[in-house]
Amino acid sequence: MSKKRLLVDMDGVMADVYQQFFKMDEEEYGVRKTLEQVLGKWEREAFKNERAYVTRKGFFREAPVMEGSIEAVKLLNDKFELFVVSAAMEFPNSLPEKLEWLAEHFPFLTWHQLVFCGLKTIVKGDIMIDDHYRNLDHFTGRTILFTQPHNYGHDDKHHERVHSWKEVLEKLL
Amino acid sequence: MSKKRLLVDMDGVMADVYQQFFKMDEEEYGVRKTLEQVLGKWEREAFKNERAYVTRKGFFREAPVMEGSIEAVKLLNDKFELFVVSAAMEFPNSLPEKLEWLAEHFPFLTWHQLVFCGLKTIVKGDIMIDDHYRNLDHFTGRTILFTQPHNYGHDDKHHERVHSWKEVLEKLL
Repeated sequence: MSKKRLLVDMDGVMADVYQQFFKMDEEEYGVRKTLEQVLGKWEREAFKNERAYVTRKGFFREAPVMEGSIEAVKLLNDKFELFVVSAAMEFPNSLPEKLEWLAEHFPFLTWHQLVFCGLKTIVKGDIMIDDHYRNLDHFTGRTILFTQPHNYGHDDKHHERVHSWKEVLEKLL
Repeated sequence: MSKKRLLVDMDGVMADVYQQFFKMDEEEYGVRKTLEQVLGKWEREAFKNERAYVTRKGFFREAPVMEGSIEAVKLLNDKFELFVVSAAMEFPNSLPEKLEWLAEHFPFLTWHQLVFCGLKTIVKGDIMIDDHYRNLDHFTGRTILFTQPHNYGHDDKHHERVHSWKEVLEKLL
C-alpha cells in the first residue's frame, strides 16, 4: 500500500515565527507584548509593523524551530509521503532563507519534498497541517489546525485542532 | 462553470533556456554547437558543463523568452485558471531570479499563480504543458509535450506534442 501524503506548513507550524514578532516588536517599541495581548488577532493587527518584520533580512532564516517539530517531522517522514508546503511567494527574498533554514534544522528532508506556492489550492494530498483557515478550508483531505495566537479562539469545528507537535503525533502515529 | 486549471512549465516552455546553453557553451569552447548536434540528447549530455551553467548567476534571469509565449500565456490566462509550475528547488539561487524574470516578462501574472517545487506530482490540475516526460508521465490530466531539443525524436505517443506556442493556442483556444 502506498503511503499517505502529508502536507506540512512551515511558518507557525515548523518555524516559530511568533518569537520573531515578539522580539522585533519589543526592539522597536521597548516593551514586550504579552501572549494575552495578541491572542485571537491577525498578525498584522497584533504587531503594528508586521509587514516590515517579515520582509526584513533574517526574519525567516533566524526563526526558532517550533518545539518538538524536528523529532516529530522525522517520525512522520518515515510513515508518510511528506511535503513541506509554504505559501512563500508573497515574499520573494524569503525563499532562499527558507531553503537554508530547512537544510539546517531538517537536514533529513530533501529538496524533492519542498513546495513554495502562492495558493495552497494547487497542492494535492491526504492530510494537511496548517495554522491558517484559508489554507485548510479548501483542502479536501483531513485537516489539522495547529494552534497559533492568531487562530486562538476562532471557530474550528471543521478542522482537528492540535496545540503541539506531541498532539500531532498522537493523532497520526 | 469554473475554469479548467492549466499548469505551465517555465524552463524550456516559457523561458528559452537552450539559447543560454548554446551561448555559454560557445563562450567556454569557442565554437557554437549546431542544433543537430544536441537533438535527442539530455541537456547535460549535449552541453558538457551544463551543471555549471544552470547554477551560474544570471542563467535564469537573463534567459530569453520563448517565441510567442507572452501573447499566448496572456490569452490562456483569461480562459484558464493558470499556474506557472517550475521544478526549481534543485537550484535555490534560481528562485529569486525566476520571480524577477516572470515579473519583467509576464507582469500580468501574479505571485498567487506561481509554484516552485521539487516534484510535480504534488500539483493538481486539468492540463499540463511541459517539455519533460518525467513531469507529464505522472500527470492524470491532459498532457501537452512542448518540443525541445532534449525530447526530440523520443516516443511521445502518450502526450500531445506541440512545436510552438502557436500550436498550443490552436489546441487550447
